[in-house]
Amino acid sequence: MDRWSGYLNTHKDRFLGELLGLLRIKSVSTDPAYQAEVRGAARWTADRMHQAGIEGVRVMETGGHPVVYGEWLHAPGKPTVLIYGHFDVQPADPLQLWTSPPFEPLVRDGRVYARGASDMKGNLVLPILACEAWLQTEGALPVNVKFLFEGEEEIGSPSLAPFITDHRELLACDVAVSADSAQYNEEQPALWVGLRGLCGVQIGVRSAATDLHSGVMGGIAPNAVHALVRIIDSLRSPDGRILVKGFYDDVLPLSQAEREALARLPDDTAAIKRQTGIRAVCGEPGFTPLERNWVRPTLDVNGMWGGFQGEGSKTIIPCEAHAKITCRLVPNQHPERILECLKAHIAAHSPAEVAVSVSPMCGHAESYMVSPDHWGMAAAGHTLATLYGKAPFHMRMGATVPVTALFLKLLGVDTVSFGFGMDDEQIHAPDEFIRLSNFEQGQRAFCMLLPELGLRGPAR
Amino acid sequence: MDRWSGYLNTHKDRFLGELLGLLRIKSVSTDPAYQAEVRGAARWTADRMHQAGIEGVRVMETGGHPVVYGEWLHAPGKPTVLIYGHFDVQPADPLQLWTSPPFEPLVRDGRVYARGASDMKGNLVLPILACEAWLQTEGALPVNVKFLFEGEEEIGSPSLAPFITDHRELLACDVAVSADSAQYNEEQPALWVGLRGLCGVQIGVRSAATDLHSGVMGGIAPNAVHALVRIIDSLRSPDGRILVKGFYDDVLPLSQAEREALARLPDDTAAIKRQTGIRAVCGEPGFTPLERNWVRPTLDVNGMWGGFQGEGSKTIIPCEAHAKITCRLVPNQHPERILECLKAHIAAHSPAEVAVSVSPMCGHAESYMVSPDHWGMAAAGHTLATLYGKAPFHMRMGATVPVTALFLKLLGVDTVSFGFGMDDEQIHAPDEFIRLSNFEQGQRAFCMLLPELGLRGPAR
Repeated sequence: MDRWSGYLNTHKDRFLGELLGLLRIKSVSTDPAYQAEVRGAARWTADRMHQAGIEGVRVMETGGHPVVYGEWLHAPGKPTVLIYGHFDVQPADPLQLWTSPPFEPLVRDGRVYARGASDMKGNLVLPILACEAWLQTEGALPVNVKFLFEGEEEIGSPSLAPFITDHRELLACDVAVSADSAQYNEEQPALWVGLRGLCGVQIGVRSAATDLHSGVMGGIAPNAVHALVRIIDSLRSPDGRILVKGFYDDVLPLSQAEREALARLPDDTAAIKRQTGIRAVCGEPGFTPLERNWVRPTLDVNGMWGGFQGEGSKTIIPCEAHAKITCRLVPNQHPERILECLKAHIAAHSPAEVAVSVSPMCGHAESYMVSPDHWGMAAAGHTLATLYGKAPFHMRMGATVPVTALFLKLLGVDTVSFGFGMDDEQIHAPDEFIRLSNFEQGQRAFCMLLPELGLRGPAR
Repeated sequence: MDRWSGYLNTHKDRFLGELLGLLRIKSVSTDPAYQAEVRGAARWTADRMHQAGIEGVRVMETGGHPVVYGEWLHAPGKPTVLIYGHFDVQPADPLQLWTSPPFEPLVRDGRVYARGASDMKGNLVLPILACEAWLQTEGALPVNVKFLFEGEEEIGSPSLAPFITDHRELLACDVAVSADSAQYNEEQPALWVGLRGLCGVQIGVRSAATDLHSGVMGGIAPNAVHALVRIIDSLRSPDGRILVKGFYDDVLPLSQAEREALARLPDDTAAIKRQTGIRAVCGEPGFTPLERNWVRPTLDVNGMWGGFQGEGSKTIIPCEAHAKITCRLVPNQHPERILECLKAHIAAHSPAEVAVSVSPMCGHAESYMVSPDHWGMAAAGHTLATLYGKAPFHMRMGATVPVTALFLKLLGVDTVSFGFGMDDEQIHAPDEFIRLSNFEQGQRAFCMLLPELGLRGPAR
């Protein structure tokens, strides 16, 4: 047995306790009220890395939330691996839907419930613990390692591109490994070969100086909610096609080979319905659910509001209404171009009697693709196959990890997504959790991945 | 000079101070949190009536908020007048748009700012003060008077029909006078000959058990906000016509004479735009603004919400969305039938992949019409003409006073609307106010109306 394995077993309870500590920090990056907590999570991460034996650890400033850097570079002739993760989390609301408070982690039935448990504090600590296990038992790592942890992933990583640009030398590496990822299920491992991009806008509509009496002005005054409804309803057809002019222009057609590869994956419809409570898997006509979810772009209202929301009734004509909209983008679509299409569409569909404002929202991210034949992917695939006894699925993914496209563009390296969340773990939703079994499996997996990368990467 | 006139002058400051006391009571009828405050406003009203010399004053229970009754019945041979008003108010939110706190009345530049100042606590006290002035100076009133003040007008008076039905004897009268009314402007008096009715629904849409990750489920999961938007957008055409099947079926056509009478009234478009900040007077094609506002029915979303409303972005597919909708109805339209039309329309336009619930909201009210030749209208018209030096406009009104239709149906009497609010006083909106000049004019007007009613009403 590898010596790191004994170390992981011996320190299992401590590692879990440490994770709970990190989960207590309310590092919600989108809300300025939690700015100090995001910094607190950066500090926690830096301290934990230092404790693990990682060197040169520092919290570094950006234009927004800080990043954490660290390194261990004493494996001459071996490749350098840049490990990525984020210590920020999504907002916890709607709070009333949580069974236990989102920032008071609860261990129950082999799961840890907390905001950020799966996405991705439970994954963030895995490579740190793996390095500690190697360093404590072998006194060295089998590859050179750099760490970059950020605090803005959940808002689209707006400060990361300038930070990487300014620190190309510091971050230079042969491959990146992102721990912000998931496995297919407890028996079946998976590697992501594609991730979608992201862009978003917030729309505001104003129809009058104040809310108006729905009787006194009813029939003659414009209604901000009706105007916004008209705009939103113009964005998608009833059957799920996006009607924004130019939206699909840059989307590459699916090859027959890709369609066949997707069709060979198992049909998860029943499991998805059970997990989410949706009545039906729906979406764009002419595509299978996996195609819609992985290789077709989307447009969703994330939130909308206007007028009276209290108990009972208030007979007003609302004077303002708002909506937040984000799009998931696929290869060859570019956030800036989609934003222009959205703005033009909204302008063309805005009723003349109201004032409409459109502002970009959240950082923008390009989509990302990596070849399954890349040496880093091969190292990860071998590790997972050894651990699970099964070759991993090569999957695309509906979600976005902005850093993947940035590393390729700015550092010239590909990213291997290597994480141990799962699709049913309620990420971005109430009662988020991570499985303890995966938390422990993930530690072993990173311990095994490091020497595999050392074997397969370029000699230096 | 009438002796009551001197009394009003002498006690002017006290009367204003008393009004401020009533305005401090947060009698928001729609919100259960303010139940005790609504009762407090009832108690205040009863105490003030007793102090004025009104007899038999009592707070009486209903199934909902209590009503206040009082009487003075020592004018043999004279008609009996039932005076109506309400001590409940609309909710004050959005609170942040108020210049001064809504329940801390502020007197500034000849105006009293507070929620309920114009609608209608400032009007409610007028007939009480007028009776006090008559009783203190003449020792008697020129007619028999009964008072009925309720606490549920702003939620559609749901308890009033059963209460009136159970107390027909107590409330028996020759005419009703509602102080819940307004004048055209400071120079031009007005009498309402028609009021619209009201009905409403709340719609709820559920698309999943929880909010879902917009990447992980994007493209395949239904979105509750998009589904609700589709339903709402199906209710009205872009140009303002209501598309609910059957909605206009019972609306009586406008006669040529009515259209000509409406066309003779001044064009207020410029003033409305200035007061409300709307860009354009809009609405149903084929009708003038006054026709749309007074004699055509309306449908407005009063509030709508779903998903994330916080700072920044949250990339979710919302699992639920809600809207509150009310309709203003015109003569011969019936709330129950319109509700059925709404329910059928919503069911027909609900996407199959979501669960949609529809529940009636707020009490329903029939529309109301009164002949300008009614003796009570003639008494009010004479009073206003004397006071303003101009004959009143005979107007219809876009808003709803549910009691008017109830008095006709249950007591067999017509209602004269006689109040001193004005259209620009921000009722149901932030910074509601009443003009002090109107508050004082209204006291004089009620003092003059009582003998006019005594002269013109049926001898008993």
